Amino acid sequence: MNHSTTNKAASLKHGIIDCDVHQSVKDFNDLKPYIPRVWWDRLSAYEATLPLPIFKPIPLNRRDAAPGNGLPPGSDPQFAKVDLLDRYNISKAILTGNLLTVSAHNNPDYAAAIASAFNDYTLDNWIPTDSRWLASIVVATQDPLLAAREIDRLGSHPKVVQVLLTDGSREPYGQRRFYPIYKAAVRNNLIIAIHGGGQGEGINPPTSAVGYPTTNFERHNILAIHQMSHLNSMVCEGIFETFPTLKVIFIEGGLAWVPHLMWRMDKNFRAMRSEVPWLKKKPSEYIIDHCRFTTQPIEEPDNYELIQMLRMMRAEKTVLFATDYPHWDNDRPLYVLNKLPEDLRPRVAYDNAAEIYHINSNHLNKEGELV
Amino acid sequence: MNHSTTNKAASLKHGIIDCDVHQSVKDFNDLKPYIPRVWWDRLSAYEATLPLPIFKPIPLNRRDAAPGNGLPPGSDPQFAKVDLLDRYNISKAILTGNLLTVSAHNNPDYAAAIASAFNDYTLDNWIPTDSRWLASIVVATQDPLLAAREIDRLGSHPKVVQVLLTDGSREPYGQRRFYPIYKAAVRNNLIIAIHGGGQGEGINPPTSAVGYPTTNFERHNILAIHQMSHLNSMVCEGIFETFPTLKVIFIEGGLAWVPHLMWRMDKNFRAMRSEVPWLKKKPSEYIIDHCRFTTQPIEEPDNYELIQMLRMMRAEKTVLFATDYPHWDNDRPLYVLNKLPEDLRPRVAYDNAAEIYHINSNHLNKEGELV
Repeated sequence: MNHSTTNKAASLKHGIIDCDVHQSVKDFNDLKPYIPRVWWDRLSAYEATLPLPIFKPIPLNRRDAAPGNGLPPGSDPQFAKVDLLDRYNISKAILTGNLLTVSAHNNPDYAAAIASAFNDYTLDNWIPTDSRWLASIVVATQDPLLAAREIDRLGSHPKVVQVLLTDGSREPYGQRRFYPIYKAAVRNNLIIAIHGGGQGEGINPPTSAVGYPTTNFERHNILAIHQMSHLNSMVCEGIFETFPTLKVIFIEGGLAWVPHLMWRMDKNFRAMRSEVPWLKKKPSEYIIDHCRFTTQPIEEPDNYELIQMLRMMRAEKTVLFATDYPHWDNDRPLYVLNKLPEDLRPRVAYDNAAEIYHINSNHLNKEGELV
Repeated sequence: MNHSTTNKAASLKHGIIDCDVHQSVKDFNDLKPYIPRVWWDRLSAYEATLPLPIFKPIPLNRRDAAPGNGLPPGSDPQFAKVDLLDRYNISKAILTGNLLTVSAHNNPDYAAAIASAFNDYTLDNWIPTDSRWLASIVVATQDPLLAAREIDRLGSHPKVVQVLLTDGSREPYGQRRFYPIYKAAVRNNLIIAIHGGGQGEGINPPTSAVGYPTTNFERHNILAIHQMSHLNSMVCEGIFETFPTLKVIFIEGGLAWVPHLMWRMDKNFRAMRSEVPWLKKKPSEYIIDHCRFTTQPIEEPDNYELIQMLRMMRAEKTVLFATDYPHWDNDRPLYVLNKLPEDLRPRVAYDNAAEIYHINSNHLNKEGELV
């Protein structure tokens, strides 16, 4: 496959920015150099990942994304570079990691320590391998002051572009106790990313808002509700008035719920705005101005319905492309991008992400090829 | 206002069926004749309604729907008949009551007793006053066997059309422990209605799936997630294969989230159906065949977007009209129905409800007027 030609067919001048790539440690014991010795005996996969006891017939990661030698998928930057970046002509890829249950731990000190270790590991082992990788730093939200300290510790690294919070949480992220995280993100010019993970696990409330699902199929179908709840909380609490430069990216939550929530919030705002006098415009306007949503796992109805839905959520501004590599349900770029009409395709593939992450396209020649 | 003319303008030959009217007791002490003496001292409004301590600047009910004499809105059938049925030329109205936190009680015996009392009160005090009233019987889901007994006790009453469950729950309603309720509904030819209420209250998990909201505005915006979770559970668990004649109506949860959930379930079904081998068709097909959704609180985007959304959810079959009288945010019929295109309007106003509730239109003359 000639990837340059393929991208031209999809009329992508600047290539693609992939907003969700899950790099992994080879083994959690590899974090030992980065974490105080007091936590070493917890570095088993179980303590690190805290799984809800729901059996997953399909493993989280694609087997064919494993680099060989028995290593887990997504754990070898050299392999991922060829298997993802080169193969699909991806200009920039945002690493989101696999420490996605960190806000479900009962011990906030351990959670903060392993998040720091994972961030250091990423900056040491992934970022130097290719200029196309950009890093998220993950923080544990149980203790927002420790999280803010972590953001200040690493936020000025030139390759760190965002702070990642997992959406499994016992408190909605609009609440005031989380302000130290947003303050730190703003003073370090970082985006906030909210990514699925940890719902119904550890100290968090039941997965579905009405209890625990029976199957992983049922669990996976309903995961948007956590992102809906955080987005609603952040807008209602006036986060975007308090932090007017803050941008929030919702990763791996799907897309088609956004119009419902925007419309419901706007409708209720007409009647109930006396409770939120700090809101100066309609809730949907905050969402369109401050929030972004990544494509994977994009809903797949008949294509005309998908395009109608994307226009309802103002996708020309709000939607960013992501593969979710190397997860089992990851998307090949053109599988998604070729569904889009001409006017939306470059916005979703590159422009929207470039604008919010302040990525310029100087590294591309006039034909949109990497130089 | 000439209501006959108004309905003709909206081209409604058979009038309107209102699928959500909240009748109320005048005072919870009025339930004393219907409930064992052991529960009498709990019949304060607090014990009966279990409110989450969220202040509501706008009271639940419209003040102008109060019948006077200091009685609560919705507590006088004679007043409601004039104020709702006559005023808007409503052919049939389904009473859904105001015992909407009953599944949040810690005591299943009290919950079952007050539900029975409320049902008897409705059948004694409301149903005889007008042939247009139809009754729901509310059941407490904490003890499905007691709920089934209640359904068998009253299910053959000719005016009882459905069993009402509140969507605030600690367990998703697709789970097997609830089968006695569905078995009883099916053997009594009753619909299951799932209505908002009790989310985050009493024994139920936090309201938002990530904790408690701060304001009633925030709480109200996110209430669809409970209906999403129950619908997902019921389809995934194969309720509609186990009970192939069962129909479920989702009341007061909004509409525009339905396409997202149908699409996500269908997408996941392609990859994860090995976990649900009892499902013989796509999740969305079960939803379209077995589930219905009431209009209030309908989302209010630009009208062309609303109509696109309604078509995505196959509203010509799945959407039923409801006022939610006498709640503060209730809808006047023509406010909603006039948004709809000609082909959808009679389906939503009357036909879809008439089909599912087996209501015939013999009581109307050729002009669609009540005789």
